[in-house]
Amino acid sequence: MGDKTMAFITMKPGALLAPVPAVLIGVGCESDGKIEQNLMTAAWAGTVCTHPPMFSVSIRPERYSYGLIQKSGEFTINLTTRAILKATDYCGVVSGKDHDKWAEAHLTPIKADGMQFAPAVAESPLYLSCRVRQTLPLGSHTMFIGEAVFMGIDEALLDEKGAFHMERAQLIAYSHGVYSGLTEALGFFGYSVASDKVLKRRLHRS
Amino acid sequence: MGDKTMAFITMKPGALLAPVPAVLIGVGCESDGKIEQNLMTAAWAGTVCTHPPMFSVSIRPERYSYGLIQKSGEFTINLTTRAILKATDYCGVVSGKDHDKWAEAHLTPIKADGMQFAPAVAESPLYLSCRVRQTLPLGSHTMFIGEAVFMGIDEALLDEKGAFHMERAQLIAYSHGVYSGLTEALGFFGYSVASDKVLKRRLHRS
Repeated sequence: MGDKTMAFITMKPGALLAPVPAVLIGVGCESDGKIEQNLMTAAWAGTVCTHPPMFSVSIRPERYSYGLIQKSGEFTINLTTRAILKATDYCGVVSGKDHDKWAEAHLTPIKADGMQFAPAVAESPLYLSCRVRQTLPLGSHTMFIGEAVFMGIDEALLDEKGAFHMERAQLIAYSHGVYSGLTEALGFFGYSVASDKVLKRRLHRS
Repeated sequence: MGDKTMAFITMKPGALLAPVPAVLIGVGCESDGKIEQNLMTAAWAGTVCTHPPMFSVSIRPERYSYGLIQKSGEFTINLTTRAILKATDYCGVVSGKDHDKWAEAHLTPIKADGMQFAPAVAESPLYLSCRVRQTLPLGSHTMFIGEAVFMGIDEALLDEKGAFHMERAQLIAYSHGVYSGLTEALGFFGYSVASDKVLKRRLHRS
């Protein structure tokens, strides 16, 4: 099943795991009786546990959103799509310290189930409401491990039978500074050992 | 920049952060004077720090590779491509306890720089040699945080000027049980604030 073997050049390592998601992190907290909400883009994010569902998000301490998560102990992860790709990039390059990212990127904060202050992004197809369980300073970035307590899904991702179709979301991926879309399905978990009948049904292959 | 807002249905959360990478984890250790090497597929993997470059890989303790990482304190992360997609899936569905995955998936273990026992996968375009810095039991999965100490890159990803072209690797992504390829570039980090000149050069847009 393998392909040709490569000729490797060894070098000083970089953060080159790819592709990774580029998600919008919704954060909020209360200070002086006023609720403040911000959002930022994070590519250093991943799944770290299935039961309970837990996710890691790594953020530089100098980022404005960092302090808001520290204070509130909560954040939302919002998946990103082709439709909001430019907004996603924008929320990764300017700071909430001197920009109202919601207004400038035309994104809308909405109440996220299970969160006190952190909003979800109305234009995202799926959000995960996370409570911080652990905070690990690692170097340039500090990792927040969040446990998801609720999830919101755009109803357009569900078909009439209630089955979930992630491919309808047109998600985007991030690889070494470049955003891409996803092609149609090339396979599914377990396809390497699936019967011809299952392959035909799931991959529409004759 | 945003798009239409969604109508959300709230539900019990699942591990639905997407897309995520599906990487091959190379592991090895010595027991009774014999070196044993295995590999497994992990989608619960991500970048957690830039400096130093650190990555998380979450594995169920009942997986065969789990014990090998525990013993050796090292693993490699190997990126995966369309060419080795079937092999990647296969290494995620059978166990090294009763399968020689290397032979069955036609993958080749090679010496990974900086590792004592954990091999890299010769058919992968890029590997990261990682030493375990922290081990966090989270529930169904235990997270290993590895610091990359070396990196190997297929020389075909570098052009004659030494510039790195990740898109040549034809990486694959994993979203809710489905493997996809990546489309051509839709944008790059900072493109939302880039000049027309830069956009034209980098995205070939007129």
